[in-house]
Amino acid sequence: MKKIITISREFGSSGGTIGKAVADRLGYEYYDKEIILRSAREANLDIASLEKWDERIPMNFGFAQSLFDFYNKPLNEKLFEAQKKVIREIGEKGNCVIVGRNANTILGEYDNTLHIFIHAHPYWRLQHLKEKMPDTSEAKIMERMKDVDKKRKKYCAYYTNTVFGMSDYYDLSLCSSSLGVDTCIDLICELAQK
Amino acid sequence: MKKIITISREFGSSGGTIGKAVADRLGYEYYDKEIILRSAREANLDIASLEKWDERIPMNFGFAQSLFDFYNKPLNEKLFEAQKKVIREIGEKGNCVIVGRNANTILGEYDNTLHIFIHAHPYWRLQHLKEKMPDTSEAKIMERMKDVDKKRKKYCAYYTNTVFGMSDYYDLSLCSSSLGVDTCIDLICELAQK
Repeated sequence: MKKIITISREFGSSGGTIGKAVADRLGYEYYDKEIILRSAREANLDIASLEKWDERIPMNFGFAQSLFDFYNKPLNEKLFEAQKKVIREIGEKGNCVIVGRNANTILGEYDNTLHIFIHAHPYWRLQHLKEKMPDTSEAKIMERMKDVDKKRKKYCAYYTNTVFGMSDYYDLSLCSSSLGVDTCIDLICELAQK
Repeated sequence: MKKIITISREFGSSGGTIGKAVADRLGYEYYDKEIILRSAREANLDIASLEKWDERIPMNFGFAQSLFDFYNKPLNEKLFEAQKKVIREIGEKGNCVIVGRNANTILGEYDNTLHIFIHAHPYWRLQHLKEKMPDTSEAKIMERMKDVDKKRKKYCAYYTNTVFGMSDYYDLSLCSSSLGVDTCIDLICELAQK
């Protein structure tokens, strides 16, 4: 029986929906954005300024590193460290599904884990996001997809020194658009119960 | 029901064993190195010189491209094209498991496919390869692992313009060392029969 399930996901791939359904079926706790809020409380930082930094690394990452260190590092790093602490606490308790936040690397050395990556074809993601954001134009959604993809990749590289979406860093990677969301949920639950 | 299953795999991850077992259980044909031999016959090249080029791209890929084009391209490209043709023929017939040879990208536009990537922790791969090569030293095996990993990555980038092992290029990626070989076989068969 796997006690800790982490789900990393591409924006619009239904990773959150899948994670929630898995948690419900297994009777596990589900953790998502609320982790940030908890970590904010822990670190006594104000939430508005934390969210500004969420999934961001310095704009000139790779270039003006020293400038970055000087101006931005403290808040970014504080947020990452605070989240890490919270994720570890959640991991200690077990019976949890954690979506996002690089939980797979943060809980890398824990036992009874199942680390999952969910991805989907870009066209499917677009259709899916259109349903969720009916008032946003296709062009804007595509721009946002590209932007989020890029940010997650950079954030992952910067904070965990791994490659976002590279199979090696997960036990299981699933394409939700070709396998279907329900099949993904079934598969994960089946593996978790082994 | 999936008619075509392709398996890309890391050296020593048991991808071949898994593919063979899946083919047996589903009653599908299994294709592996023999593809090279068939393609060699098709292209009327002699097998020894073909195998010399297998999974190779020019040594100075990225540098002396023009030199490469002049000296090496014809034989490399001929081999790749001949394999491609054979893989497409196998795909047309269906009910097949194809291991390696970038079959996932070659059959990318076919219907009823299931494209899989199998990977494993390096330490597990080493243990596994030691059983298969009892007369080779650990150091030599590790060197060979590194060498094959590098070659497959380059070969994949060069011929298919994709990234070897990047989740996006497969429907399903499995870690055979953490999930177990038998679980991988069960999972693939289950998905293939959907």
